Amino acid sequence: MLLFKIFLFFSLLSSTLCHETFNSHLLPRPLIIQYPEDIESQFKEFHEEVKLQCTSWRFSVETNNLSPWKTIPVECGAYVKDYMMGRGYKVDLERVSNEAGVYAKSVELNGDGKDVWVFDIDETLLSNLPYYAEHGYGLEAFDPVQFDKWVSSGIAPAIEPSLKLYEKVLDLGFKVFLLTGRSEEQRSVTIENLTRVGFHSWDKLVLRDSEDHGKLAKIFKSEKRSKMVEEGYRILGNSGDQWSDLLGSCPAIRSFKLPNPMYYIP
Amino acid sequence: MLLFKIFLFFSLLSSTLCHETFNSHLLPRPLIIQYPEDIESQFKEFHEEVKLQCTSWRFSVETNNLSPWKTIPVECGAYVKDYMMGRGYKVDLERVSNEAGVYAKSVELNGDGKDVWVFDIDETLLSNLPYYAEHGYGLEAFDPVQFDKWVSSGIAPAIEPSLKLYEKVLDLGFKVFLLTGRSEEQRSVTIENLTRVGFHSWDKLVLRDSEDHGKLAKIFKSEKRSKMVEEGYRILGNSGDQWSDLLGSCPAIRSFKLPNPMYYIP
Repeated sequence: MLLFKIFLFFSLLSSTLCHETFNSHLLPRPLIIQYPEDIESQFKEFHEEVKLQCTSWRFSVETNNLSPWKTIPVECGAYVKDYMMGRGYKVDLERVSNEAGVYAKSVELNGDGKDVWVFDIDETLLSNLPYYAEHGYGLEAFDPVQFDKWVSSGIAPAIEPSLKLYEKVLDLGFKVFLLTGRSEEQRSVTIENLTRVGFHSWDKLVLRDSEDHGKLAKIFKSEKRSKMVEEGYRILGNSGDQWSDLLGSCPAIRSFKLPNPMYYIP
Repeated sequence: MLLFKIFLFFSLLSSTLCHETFNSHLLPRPLIIQYPEDIESQFKEFHEEVKLQCTSWRFSVETNNLSPWKTIPVECGAYVKDYMMGRGYKVDLERVSNEAGVYAKSVELNGDGKDVWVFDIDETLLSNLPYYAEHGYGLEAFDPVQFDKWVSSGIAPAIEPSLKLYEKVLDLGFKVFLLTGRSEEQRSVTIENLTRVGFHSWDKLVLRDSEDHGKLAKIFKSEKRSKMVEEGYRILGNSGDQWSDLLGSCPAIRSFKLPNPMYYIP
């Protein structure tokens, strides 16, 4: 109804202006356009509605309710940008890091070197936000060539709350396994990037080998977790920004979903 | 810093008023209190901050990042009430119902009567919002005696978007299984309540039997799903407001998390 009113307003406004052009022989009229009295409140209402719908869309992303999607809704472009660049994203990252830290501290480790925390890399330890800021925050469809170029630059900053959690779980005596959808060819640049921004040690860094290409992330990561469990490891915690990092076989005792409304990996 | 400023403002205001009382012999002064110029914007900022923190808290609830919790944070009481009673909750319910409906329609059923959609009941098909509205929307700790009294009244309204989904999956030919943490003693009142508000048929209604009492919901529901799978059923969809409805063994091909920031069931 509101959308209809706004549409009607613009249609009338446009029709008034057109009328002006085509009837220049008419008597002069005052140059004051009579806006509907409540136009400001209607715009505010419209803005609130967009925010409500995009917040709801973001919930459905973060709860894994959506079917696979390739780009964010056009009408949520500004909303996602505001969220990612404003305090919303930071506050959410800090909260998930704190919650994970409280849990990590509460766990009694066995002390046999088999207690593991798994971390994903992209949008979990390293931030590709500088790349996505140049590509519409998810409005543009994923471009693997451009993205690989960005990855190979090796300049992705750390996600600071995750760095804090990583240091905490290492201090507590967890083994840290990094499990990423990046390919083996990106191993050295990934190590350089991680090291440069403060991630200095881990016990495994698992990337996609040639035989893993084409597998869904959920399948690939499940297989790798199963292997860890077969080797006698206990996966006590898992941090990832995609549900495909966390669901599937051999899930962690506790999984932590980091926010990411910019893209979806099945 | 902002909280400190607001605290300081109230302290000064309070001290001014006290001063007035104890110095009534002073010369008359104008009865205009000089508010700090930016007090309105500071209150707005404070309100925005609470909203941001509570939205973040709600995300951590809906993504299952929190440790088991018994009541909502006191500072989020008004926020949760506004969400539940305003359009936020309705819009989220409609979105998850629509997404589930699109998926249900896209599934090719086998036609052997073994394709199943599982629904939880409380806060999924039936709404206990009238009860929680009387109990602080989650601010009060759960009271099983009071809650059972409400359940036995049998007047919980339908969650309309879920009723729509339920009718859709029945029309499409799914078997509908209801799997609830309610106890066997509540079977007849549950059937009466469901029927009264539009849920007229299902293929199984599974409640907690005496042997299930004391089990975590996640364990109880996993066991019941495993039994369904052993009987040859394929669980294609599952709708629930708690992660304990959806996670564990034999999960559905697609799970749909309905919003519920009022309580947590492990």
